[in-house]
Amino acid sequence: MAEKRIYVDHSATTPLKPEVLDAMLPYFTEYFGNASTVYAEGRETKKAVNLAREQVAKAIGADVKEIFFTGSGTEADNWAIRGIAKALRHKGNHIITSSVEHHAVLHTCQELEKDGFEVTYLPVDEFGMVSPKDVENAIKDETILVTIMMANNEIGTIMPIEEIGRITKEKGVLLHTDAVQAIGMIEIDVNKMNIDLLSMTGHKFYGPKGSGALFVRKGVKIAPFITGGAQERNKRAGTENVAAIVGLGKAIELATADIASHTEKLKAMRDRLIDRILEEIPYTRLNGHRTERLASNSNISFEFIEGESLLLMLDMQGISASSGSACTSGSLDPSHVLLAIGLKHEIAHGSLRVSFGDSNTMEDVDRIVEALKTIVARLREMSPLYEAVKKSE
Amino acid sequence: MAEKRIYVDHSATTPLKPEVLDAMLPYFTEYFGNASTVYAEGRETKKAVNLAREQVAKAIGADVKEIFFTGSGTEADNWAIRGIAKALRHKGNHIITSSVEHHAVLHTCQELEKDGFEVTYLPVDEFGMVSPKDVENAIKDETILVTIMMANNEIGTIMPIEEIGRITKEKGVLLHTDAVQAIGMIEIDVNKMNIDLLSMTGHKFYGPKGSGALFVRKGVKIAPFITGGAQERNKRAGTENVAAIVGLGKAIELATADIASHTEKLKAMRDRLIDRILEEIPYTRLNGHRTERLASNSNISFEFIEGESLLLMLDMQGISASSGSACTSGSLDPSHVLLAIGLKHEIAHGSLRVSFGDSNTMEDVDRIVEALKTIVARLREMSPLYEAVKKSE
Repeated sequence: MAEKRIYVDHSATTPLKPEVLDAMLPYFTEYFGNASTVYAEGRETKKAVNLAREQVAKAIGADVKEIFFTGSGTEADNWAIRGIAKALRHKGNHIITSSVEHHAVLHTCQELEKDGFEVTYLPVDEFGMVSPKDVENAIKDETILVTIMMANNEIGTIMPIEEIGRITKEKGVLLHTDAVQAIGMIEIDVNKMNIDLLSMTGHKFYGPKGSGALFVRKGVKIAPFITGGAQERNKRAGTENVAAIVGLGKAIELATADIASHTEKLKAMRDRLIDRILEEIPYTRLNGHRTERLASNSNISFEFIEGESLLLMLDMQGISASSGSACTSGSLDPSHVLLAIGLKHEIAHGSLRVSFGDSNTMEDVDRIVEALKTIVARLREMSPLYEAVKKSE
Repeated sequence: MAEKRIYVDHSATTPLKPEVLDAMLPYFTEYFGNASTVYAEGRETKKAVNLAREQVAKAIGADVKEIFFTGSGTEADNWAIRGIAKALRHKGNHIITSSVEHHAVLHTCQELEKDGFEVTYLPVDEFGMVSPKDVENAIKDETILVTIMMANNEIGTIMPIEEIGRITKEKGVLLHTDAVQAIGMIEIDVNKMNIDLLSMTGHKFYGPKGSGALFVRKGVKIAPFITGGAQERNKRAGTENVAAIVGLGKAIELATADIASHTEKLKAMRDRLIDRILEEIPYTRLNGHRTERLASNSNISFEFIEGESLLLMLDMQGISASSGSACTSGSLDPSHVLLAIGLKHEIAHGSLRVSFGDSNTMEDVDRIVEALKTIVARLREMSPLYEAVKKSE
C-alpha cells in the first residue's frame, strides 16, 4: 500500500480547514449578492463581510475600521508601501527595509527607487535578524516608512518588531510589517507593538488563497492602490470577494484561538527534525535563528547537494517540501535570504525548507529524516566535490 | 406562501453556476498546493491553472500566453491603464477614454492626471455611444492608449469597438477595452477587433468573485502592477488563486458556448419589460440604445421618483434590482453615465436598472412590471411635483 504523502510546505500554502470551507460555501450558493447593494441578497453578504472584519480586527488587537480586505498578501504589501509613499511623498522620500524581506516588499521598494525614492536595505546578522539599532541609525528626516517583516518566510527568523516599533514610534516614522508568515504563530497586538500597517493573507493559516487584508492604523494617511468603486470605504476598489473574506475571517479566528498549544506541537516536530538532521547527516547546517524562529520552520543546508534534485527525490518518496520561497520557484538564482545571512552560492543552492502544519506527526518527522539520509547519501555519491572532501578526511 | 425572490441585478454580480462550483471545489480540498511549486500537489494545481488559461484564451480568440490572471476586473483595468502608462511614458503622456467608463477606468485615469498624464474624456451621444470619429480626432502624437469599454454597465450600450479598433490599429495606438459586462453577451475576437488589452471578471458571467483576467497582446510592453513573486510569468505577483482561476475558466467556457441562444432568451425578457413599462407607466424613458444594448440590460428613468425609494419598495416585494452601478452604491451623486447622456439630475436620480440572467422567466418580467406600476403610482402620489404636473394636464 502506498504510504500517505507528507506535506511539509505550509509556509508556501496550507490546506483549507474544513470549518473554513463550510463557512465559505453558503457565499458560493444562496448568498451570492454583491455586498455593495441595498436589497436582501446584498444585506446578507454585507453582514458576512462585517463579521469577518471583526474577526480579523480582534485577532490582531485592531479596530474594525482599521481593516481593509485585499486580494492577497502581496497586494497588501504593495498597497502599504506604495500607498504610504504616495501619501507622504511631500514629507520625505526615504524608506527603510531589510535585505531579507519577501519579494512583495523588496521588488516594490525597488520600483519606488526608479520613481525617485531612496531605500535603505538593512543587513541582517548570521541568523537573519535585523538590528533595532540599525533601524534607529538609518532613520533620517526624510524617512517616511520602515517596513520589516514579522517573521521570515524562508528561514523562519522572528524579527524584533516590538523593539523596532518603540523606535519608529519615538521617531514619528510609520512602521509596516509583512505578517504573512506570523499570523497564528506569534501573538500580535498592533497597539502594544506600535505597528501602523500590517499585511496578511488567509492561505498561510488554513484560509483561502486570494484572500488578504491590510491593517491601517486610524489616522494614517494612505493613498488607494486599486482605484475604482467605493468598496472598503473608498480605499480598495473591486467587488467584495465575499467567500474569500468570510474564509479569511473564520481562518484567523481559528488560527489565533490557541496559538500557544498549536505552536508547541509544531515546535516539537521542528526541533526533532533539526536535531536529528544535524546529528545524523554530516555537512549540514541550520539556517535562521535556533530559538527566535517560527514554530513551523526548519531550513537546512546540505553541503555538496543541489537543492532541486533533493526536492525531486523527496517528491518521489511522497514528501512535499521546498527549497525556499514558492514565489521565486523556477528562478535559478540562489535565495537572497540565504545570501544575506552569509551563505556561499553553492551552499545556498543545497538548502531545504521543511515547514510543518496541523496534519503532520512525529512519524512524519522520522520518515523525512530517513528519506533525507538515503537521498543525501545518494546525491553526494555523485558529487566529485564530496569525494574530494571525503578523501582528505 | 411567499413568492420566490426575483433577482434582476446580474450586471452587479451573478450566482455561481453549479458546474462552476463543482469545478472549483477540488481546489479547496485535495488539490490545495501552491501552483508555483515542483512537487505533486503543485503540479496538479499548475495543470488546472493552465487549463483555465486555455479556456479564457479560447473564449476571446487569444493565445494562452496572452492571458494573465488577476484578482478582479477592477485590478485588470487598473493594471492595463497604469501598466501601459508606465511602460510607454517615454513615448507620450496622452490617454483617450470616454465619459461613461466604469470608475475602475475613470478614477484610474484621474489618478494618472495627477502624475502628469493628459486624459481626453470623450463625450457620448444621447444613447451613450462613443463616436469612432471622435476617437480618431482625439488621437495625437502623444497618445499612447485608447481605453473604451465594450458595453456600458449601467445603460447597456454596446460600443463600436471594432470600428475603434480599426482606427487605433491604423494610428499605431494601443486599444484597451473593459469587457467586464460583455463576456458571454457579445462574440469577442481580439484579433478581428484589433484589441490590444481586455479586462474581465468571472463574477459577471456565473463565475466566482475575486477572479479576473487581463488579455495583453503579444509584443505589447506593459509594466507589472502588483510586484513581488514570479507568478504569471513575472507579470502579476501573488500566490495563484487556483480555485478562482479554475472557476473563471469553467465559467467563461460555459458562458461563451452558445452566446446566440443565451442572449435571445434574455433579449425577449428585456424587450418585454421595456415595452410594457414605456407603454403602461407614464413619464418614463429608456436610457441607452434601443438595439445596440446588452441583451440583459434595461435602464429606465421614472420621472418624479427617487430611485432609492423605488429600490427599497421593490426589495420589499421580493425584487432585487439596482439604480445603476453597485460600485457607487452609498454615494448620493447621480450616475455619471446618466448625466453624460444628457439626463437632468432629478431624472437621473429616478432611474432603475433591471439586468436579467439565466434564472429569470417571462413571469418574472410581468411580476416586475406589475410591482413597478403599483410602487411608482404610490411614490408619485407623495410627489408635489407630480401633483403639479397632473393638475396642469
